[in-house]
Amino acid sequence: MEELKKYVSMKDEDHFYHQGAVELLIFNFLLILTILTIWLFKNHRFRFLHETGGAMLYGLVMGLIIRYVTKSPDVESGTVYECEKLKSGPSTLLINITNQVYEYQYKREISHHNVNSHQGNAMLQKMTFDPSIFFNILLPPIIFHAGYSLKKRHFFRNLGSILTYAFLGTAISCIVTGLIMYGFVKAMVHIGQLKQWEFHFTDCLFFGSLMSATDPVTVLAIFHELNVDTDLYTLLFGESVLNDAVAIVLTHSISIYSPKENPNAFDAAAFFQSVGNFLGIFAGSFAMGSSYAVVTALISFMHLTKFTKLCEFPMLETGLFFLLSWSAFLSAEAAGLTGIVAVLFCGVTQAHYTYNNLSPDSKMRTKQLFEFMNFLAENVIFCYMGLALFTFQNHIFNPLFIFGALVAVFVARASNIYPLSFLLNLGRKQKIPRNFQHMMMFSGLRGAIAFALAIRDTASQPRQLMFSTALLLVFFTVWVLGGGTTPMLTWLQIRVGVDPDEDLKAKAASQSASNLDKNTTKAESAWLFRIWYGFDHKYLKPLLTHTGPPLTSTLPEWCSPVARLLTSPSAYGDQLKDGDTVYIIDNDELTENYESSAHIPVPAQDSTGSIQATGKEDIQEGDLGLGGYKLQLQHTAGQPQKNSLA
Amino acid sequence: MEELKKYVSMKDEDHFYHQGAVELLIFNFLLILTILTIWLFKNHRFRFLHETGGAMLYGLVMGLIIRYVTKSPDVESGTVYECEKLKSGPSTLLINITNQVYEYQYKREISHHNVNSHQGNAMLQKMTFDPSIFFNILLPPIIFHAGYSLKKRHFFRNLGSILTYAFLGTAISCIVTGLIMYGFVKAMVHIGQLKQWEFHFTDCLFFGSLMSATDPVTVLAIFHELNVDTDLYTLLFGESVLNDAVAIVLTHSISIYSPKENPNAFDAAAFFQSVGNFLGIFAGSFAMGSSYAVVTALISFMHLTKFTKLCEFPMLETGLFFLLSWSAFLSAEAAGLTGIVAVLFCGVTQAHYTYNNLSPDSKMRTKQLFEFMNFLAENVIFCYMGLALFTFQNHIFNPLFIFGALVAVFVARASNIYPLSFLLNLGRKQKIPRNFQHMMMFSGLRGAIAFALAIRDTASQPRQLMFSTALLLVFFTVWVLGGGTTPMLTWLQIRVGVDPDEDLKAKAASQSASNLDKNTTKAESAWLFRIWYGFDHKYLKPLLTHTGPPLTSTLPEWCSPVARLLTSPSAYGDQLKDGDTVYIIDNDELTENYESSAHIPVPAQDSTGSIQATGKEDIQEGDLGLGGYKLQLQHTAGQPQKNSLA
Repeated sequence: MEELKKYVSMKDEDHFYHQGAVELLIFNFLLILTILTIWLFKNHRFRFLHETGGAMLYGLVMGLIIRYVTKSPDVESGTVYECEKLKSGPSTLLINITNQVYEYQYKREISHHNVNSHQGNAMLQKMTFDPSIFFNILLPPIIFHAGYSLKKRHFFRNLGSILTYAFLGTAISCIVTGLIMYGFVKAMVHIGQLKQWEFHFTDCLFFGSLMSATDPVTVLAIFHELNVDTDLYTLLFGESVLNDAVAIVLTHSISIYSPKENPNAFDAAAFFQSVGNFLGIFAGSFAMGSSYAVVTALISFMHLTKFTKLCEFPMLETGLFFLLSWSAFLSAEAAGLTGIVAVLFCGVTQAHYTYNNLSPDSKMRTKQLFEFMNFLAENVIFCYMGLALFTFQNHIFNPLFIFGALVAVFVARASNIYPLSFLLNLGRKQKIPRNFQHMMMFSGLRGAIAFALAIRDTASQPRQLMFSTALLLVFFTVWVLGGGTTPMLTWLQIRVGVDPDEDLKAKAASQSASNLDKNTTKAESAWLFRIWYGFDHKYLKPLLTHTGPPLTSTLPEWCSPVARLLTSPSAYGDQLKDGDTVYIIDNDELTENYESSAHIPVPAQDSTGSIQATGKEDIQEGDLGLGGYKLQLQHTAGQPQKNSLA
Repeated sequence: MEELKKYVSMKDEDHFYHQGAVELLIFNFLLILTILTIWLFKNHRFRFLHETGGAMLYGLVMGLIIRYVTKSPDVESGTVYECEKLKSGPSTLLINITNQVYEYQYKREISHHNVNSHQGNAMLQKMTFDPSIFFNILLPPIIFHAGYSLKKRHFFRNLGSILTYAFLGTAISCIVTGLIMYGFVKAMVHIGQLKQWEFHFTDCLFFGSLMSATDPVTVLAIFHELNVDTDLYTLLFGESVLNDAVAIVLTHSISIYSPKENPNAFDAAAFFQSVGNFLGIFAGSFAMGSSYAVVTALISFMHLTKFTKLCEFPMLETGLFFLLSWSAFLSAEAAGLTGIVAVLFCGVTQAHYTYNNLSPDSKMRTKQLFEFMNFLAENVIFCYMGLALFTFQNHIFNPLFIFGALVAVFVARASNIYPLSFLLNLGRKQKIPRNFQHMMMFSGLRGAIAFALAIRDTASQPRQLMFSTALLLVFFTVWVLGGGTTPMLTWLQIRVGVDPDEDLKAKAASQSASNLDKNTTKAESAWLFRIWYGFDHKYLKPLLTHTGPPLTSTLPEWCSPVARLLTSPSAYGDQLKDGDTVYIIDNDELTENYESSAHIPVPAQDSTGSIQATGKEDIQEGDLGLGGYKLQLQHTAGQPQKNSLA
């Protein structure tokens, strides 16, 4: 007994000292390998394998090694124990084993089917981390970064199309995938491959919604590196960012959709409830995300007497910015909304308002911090996806289902892009050409979001089947479609090496040549957003940032006491440079815009190394060049540039 | 049955969607509060409560709320189930409850004593996170940052004293605390307070070793803000950094020490084995940490033909730097060594070699990244300590033991500082004055490391008693001693507002005045390190960095083919500026040093906002000012400064 106790205590000690270190080390090792590989590839200008593809490949190999090299150490883990006294699974279980109480924590519910020989491999289990880590820690920085680095100018020029693709397109994609999968499932039941489970239409729709989240990170990185046409880039980037949000909320709504009686019959009440859920969750998450950003903007803008402004303390400012943005995500999740949507719009709003209030030091810090976190999180996720193919213990691979999914995903993408592009071209002045449509069709890669949605619930067999299938589709699309991007660009004769500003200038020139178009252009650019911009420029920007005209001049006469209270002293002096900013955003008369901004010393875009560095590194430049310009003004105005050389 | 299944599945869904979000949100909220409070305090120049003290206070309040507001939801969690079939606790338990298999994961072993009413409070349990998160995720950035920001110049000038305090002092502190605690334990057994447990002398030593880890983060922050005498700062900072490493290895060695027979008797063989363990683990961890740094330096230095250097890709460079440094920690842990020691020396080595190879962009990125991570991790840990007082479920508070610990800790600190200072003053040219000794005595705060070591193992009752006591001592020292730092400085008449460079100049002047001292000074500065610096300057620096003379000139004639291969082309042109660098490090003739470097345009230290910003923010400046100078040279030499304004 004494012997045993010592043994147990020694084992525990050992357990404590190395717990988690080996698993983290494996991830670190994979990431280091990935970074070295990217470096090698960048040197050879090798674009067939993106860093995420590489990360996935290394993960795959490591998973294979872990699976077949490590042995299952404890035999007892594989067996199922009966417990008559319990009625349901409590979150914590205390078990008395030979007079020693052990505490066990609830992990998940598994079906009898899954209790196979690999269940007991401790190493495999340790490598399979909690899906909540994905959702709470790895995804938020990626999505936030997407929102924060959105090229606002181009984004808003294409807003109508982006929204159409993202909302309508994703819904179409979800339904088409669901229908095709339902056909395949019926066929599988017919030939006797699926008889033992129930696979409802809602399950098919669920699969459809999770497979509708596209993630063309590889394609976008290549586009960025090659300076592909900005409109195509923006359409694809905008679509993929918003589409993730839509797909997540859709998945959530479908999983809530539970018709009362026959699960296969259509229940109108439940359907409308789901639609209501979708709208409510989306709107709620949007509101949550942007209000956190507004709070951040207000705090960083705060200008109390006797109070040093927060921007005097860059570390506190960066910390607050980071924590409030993350809180937007977490609050939305905690409130039953969708954190991803919240953090996305939080990112957009932060870039729009808070960014202007930050100290030059914090601007750089936040930008670099989020870039870095995005880079790490993305590679960790792709590594993990590679690992999961061999370390996940309950895969169900069904060739027919996989084939069906492959077909469904492509048909769904086609019925999203082509019909919608046709409809959009009816209204668009600047048509989406045929080769852009093909490229968008081709760029329907699946990635982190589809995987994360699939891994969230792998308790039942249908869900396991979906997870395994989704994983394979991610591999296929990232490697095959991702690798084929450069050849595809050449084949479709899409022009590369376009300077975004040159692009604007050229378009402006062509537009000013045919002066008749001007009015059409104006009408075309969404009127709703012109109103919004007017409001934003006149009231929100002055209220939340240092830019924009002073509120005293925009608010009506009778509001002037309030206005004077709310206007920061610096706003009065900022008229000129703000004029330029707003001009660019607010006007579609591009010639004038270009000419009026031509004298601004726009910082030279460094096209040597750093653009290639991460692929996504300076997505912001196009838009934040303006920020850079303002910053320069401030410097020449005498404010010392702190820490930038220290 | 169908009903139940649906219910369970719904519950799961819900579980998945919010898992972890609430707990993370609570931490975020606490950190946001802390940041806002720091901002407020900084505005009012209020130095009685440091940010860490504030974080702890907020944690405490939140813990109180969680404990008394949330209710225990599931009744079943509190009961202990018997399981006759099991012989020991497997890592995973599969339990069949009403035809549904649930998977449970091993959490910890608990004694019967602990199965109290709070066991089942799910919220409390969720807030108690895994100790491995402390060790693998929160501590490494703090320790790395300490190593990375070490003021090398001042550190090496005081190296002998620092090593004495850290090694000998910590050992003294551990033994004295252990002995006093053993006395108290004996007394407690005598009056019948401890009769039911066994509390061996090794347990007391274990407690002594974990309480020997000092963490004067509050004091150092105030010192930094007030520009307290650099020698005192360096002594305290250096001691606390190395002392953590020593205390951790000591704790590890003591926990391994297991005498064969009577646990109270002295077993010479086991003792020497422990000493051997200590030395082996320390040396191994040191080697592990520095070799990772050397690998990083080599990779970032690599200069192959046809290969773009890594510094052209700042994101990859930063990523690699970060991952390799973390891997140093994880590898050491996985190999059974001490990760903290490894990551500390990794930090020192990275600052010494790799930092010189980084691109200007990466220099800034890594510095800011590690600062930020240090800031967050530190505040999370202190928040968590506050929380733990009320959320940890197995506290054992024993007033006598706590009183004993308080006495022991102070006596131990006194028997560390005063006798060793006396001995050191016998050899030191620059004596450690009496008021410095008192201040060092006073700065014996306990913090993150003591807490982390105590929480690692809370299975048995003696360990729970130690944990609760350690936690209270942390609270006491951080609030009382930390808060009393500024009054104490005044009371001890320690001069503040010292400019480190002015300080050097003054000392140099006083030394050159008494020219006789020169030889003594030279002899005094550790001869071992003069040899090391010679070697470092001639061979290691040229091999691993861009600085130092070319190897072709330092290696003997017959090595010249190898030397030419290993020398980077830029090394030839760097002679002049390197001369300055090495002069400062290599020479104690401070007058000449100061004069020779007087013409260098040292970047102005910004003494306005950013110094106050984090308290630790620009510890590096003193030393890395040289790096900044080099950087300036590079800029004027035509290399564009990338991204610094973007």
